[in-house]
Amino acid sequence: MKHNGKEAAGGPVPLPRGFRAAGSSVGIKPDGQKDLALIVSEHPCTVAGVFTTNQVLGATVKLCRETLESRAGRGVVVNSGIANACTGPEGMADARRMAAAAAEAAGMSPDEMYVCSTGHIGDRVPLDRIEAGVPALAGSLSEHGALDAAEAIMTTDLVPKFASATLRVEGRPVTITGLAKGSGMIEPRMATMLAFLFTDAGVDAAALQQALSEGVGDSFNRISVDGDCSTNDTVLFFANAQAGHSTACAPGHSEWPDFRRAVAEVCFDLAMQIVRDGEGAKKLVTVEVCGARSTAEADAAARAVGNSMLVKTSWAGPHVQWGRVMDALGYSAAKIDPDKVEIDYNGVPAVQNGMPAGTPDATLEQAVAGEAFTLHIDLHLGEGRATIYSCDCTEDYVKINK
Amino acid sequence: MKHNGKEAAGGPVPLPRGFRAAGSSVGIKPDGQKDLALIVSEHPCTVAGVFTTNQVLGATVKLCRETLESRAGRGVVVNSGIANACTGPEGMADARRMAAAAAEAAGMSPDEMYVCSTGHIGDRVPLDRIEAGVPALAGSLSEHGALDAAEAIMTTDLVPKFASATLRVEGRPVTITGLAKGSGMIEPRMATMLAFLFTDAGVDAAALQQALSEGVGDSFNRISVDGDCSTNDTVLFFANAQAGHSTACAPGHSEWPDFRRAVAEVCFDLAMQIVRDGEGAKKLVTVEVCGARSTAEADAAARAVGNSMLVKTSWAGPHVQWGRVMDALGYSAAKIDPDKVEIDYNGVPAVQNGMPAGTPDATLEQAVAGEAFTLHIDLHLGEGRATIYSCDCTEDYVKINK
Repeated sequence: MKHNGKEAAGGPVPLPRGFRAAGSSVGIKPDGQKDLALIVSEHPCTVAGVFTTNQVLGATVKLCRETLESRAGRGVVVNSGIANACTGPEGMADARRMAAAAAEAAGMSPDEMYVCSTGHIGDRVPLDRIEAGVPALAGSLSEHGALDAAEAIMTTDLVPKFASATLRVEGRPVTITGLAKGSGMIEPRMATMLAFLFTDAGVDAAALQQALSEGVGDSFNRISVDGDCSTNDTVLFFANAQAGHSTACAPGHSEWPDFRRAVAEVCFDLAMQIVRDGEGAKKLVTVEVCGARSTAEADAAARAVGNSMLVKTSWAGPHVQWGRVMDALGYSAAKIDPDKVEIDYNGVPAVQNGMPAGTPDATLEQAVAGEAFTLHIDLHLGEGRATIYSCDCTEDYVKINK
Repeated sequence: MKHNGKEAAGGPVPLPRGFRAAGSSVGIKPDGQKDLALIVSEHPCTVAGVFTTNQVLGATVKLCRETLESRAGRGVVVNSGIANACTGPEGMADARRMAAAAAEAAGMSPDEMYVCSTGHIGDRVPLDRIEAGVPALAGSLSEHGALDAAEAIMTTDLVPKFASATLRVEGRPVTITGLAKGSGMIEPRMATMLAFLFTDAGVDAAALQQALSEGVGDSFNRISVDGDCSTNDTVLFFANAQAGHSTACAPGHSEWPDFRRAVAEVCFDLAMQIVRDGEGAKKLVTVEVCGARSTAEADAAARAVGNSMLVKTSWAGPHVQWGRVMDALGYSAAKIDPDKVEIDYNGVPAVQNGMPAGTPDATLEQAVAGEAFTLHIDLHLGEGRATIYSCDCTEDYVKINK
């Protein structure tokens, strides 16, 4: 059974047992939009995290990293609208007070409460509003509150993002549920947004980190909206061991492969929702590169194509414009032999031996007309493969960001 | 005395003595727009060139490099509309026949005629139209034909680009004149467009290459429209020694520094015209970085800012949005200490010690309201400095390219 944002909007969103969530407006964003989310576990959790590689870190990222030293915790409070980045020591103090207020309202210790912020850089969060609002927010915590929480972490996102997977561990049902937000400053290098995963499985802390890092590597790290990597990107994963299996999940456990796969699925599902809802995006484009001399070169080639403004604007047409793809491959860090390059769109050949494959333009344009298509590139130089999930760049991207 | 495209459009465009130019339509571009240019010297020239670093090379780039082995030549023929790239052996044959036809029409040997193409990738040039049109084009060669030639090399350029400088060598007046075209696929790493320079100075071939390479390094290599580096970028420089001074310009000549400076001025003037006329651009933004640990890191920081889609779209507002600048600095390859960063806009402080400088928003917005502004960044970590010339990214960029 799987759920995602669209289904969730029309029905209940399952949280693993023992987790409760809430989202409300405390006046950070204009027009009464939800802007504060709280998700907590009744029981102690092992916690894993992945953070931005940006040298400029939001205050809450610094605090999360500090809190995560324990590899434990029970909840997370998140505000949208203001990133609490470039705010100096005062911003750090604000983050600590925000964690403390949420912890107190939820009846736990401050070092059990993680805190995240997303939004405009350079402004301080309105701590008075958060402190005033958090008791009511804690009062509304519910096992049905995940959608409210997913909405409260949105910035320019058009839809809340939500995914869930279930599996059995020692015969007992286990749920993994994730919430995420995009949708600009999305760059395929590290955790590139906010995402929160929760499971009722019991998972060893090191194993939880391993499963999360692997899942992030194949999902959030492989999407591209605009090539900008934010200061506040954070993924946290909480496991509260309420499913009732006797041995903690970890490498060696017979169901460990299933668990890892389920985590990867939830991460991938959320990542695809983020790229589909990229600012102004109308089209999901999968860029597959094979035949590179190495995985790293395949990755460089796929990222050059998936990040090229000229390529992304051509997809908005939509037009094939494979010349721009050749151009991007040519300036990428991957070695290419132009005379060997093969490119097809949804299986329709566009380029063979670096030259037009002879497919009529109308047939090619048809291949890219849908809401999603796959651009497959074979460099014919080796065994390296990589895939990047990108989107088109429309006038709306500029409108949203200017 | 200087000239540039805008002035040129209203008056005569000087070519150095002994050079003649022409531009006309031979039916490559639609609607009868000029699409074929020819510029020749009556006398033999030393020639220098700088080419794209893209691994995918247009056929004419390959042929130019071959022709340039002689460091000599007398002319260049250029078509716009079709790039003659990704066209295989047939494309190379087309380029050779285009050079031969132009050489014959102009009464010179094919190995004296350089050939450049710019436009759509993947199509072959309509050789029959070029061969049919080039005799009349050669017949219209004129010392007043530079503007026609500048117009004939335009693709999405809105204005022809033209610059000229004069100096004295051994008391004799010398002219350096350049034509260029942009205006997408502009990336700050190598010669990122077509530009042609001509002088009546006598210049040693190695010295000509040195002056050109230096000029390109500080001009065309320092501009950014969209971060895409084309397959056909070429700069050629012809010197025909018709000014009448007795010793060729070269290092050691008393007027060599003046000559180098004049070449650099013409390159810089053309480069600024290209970035101002970047596809959809409304604003020229100079990004200055100082205080980096090295020149290379200053360069990386300036390019990260100047290429960031989020930064460029914010300039279209226009808005200051310095948080996006901090973000780009943070993911650049330059080492930064976020708490030391200082940013100002046209001298108005926005960030001090990585935090808001306290300048009212309205004052900052006023600083970026004009047609051009300078964004100055001090990293306070060393002596490295670099400057990049960028532009805003508007909805029109997407409209032009989708």
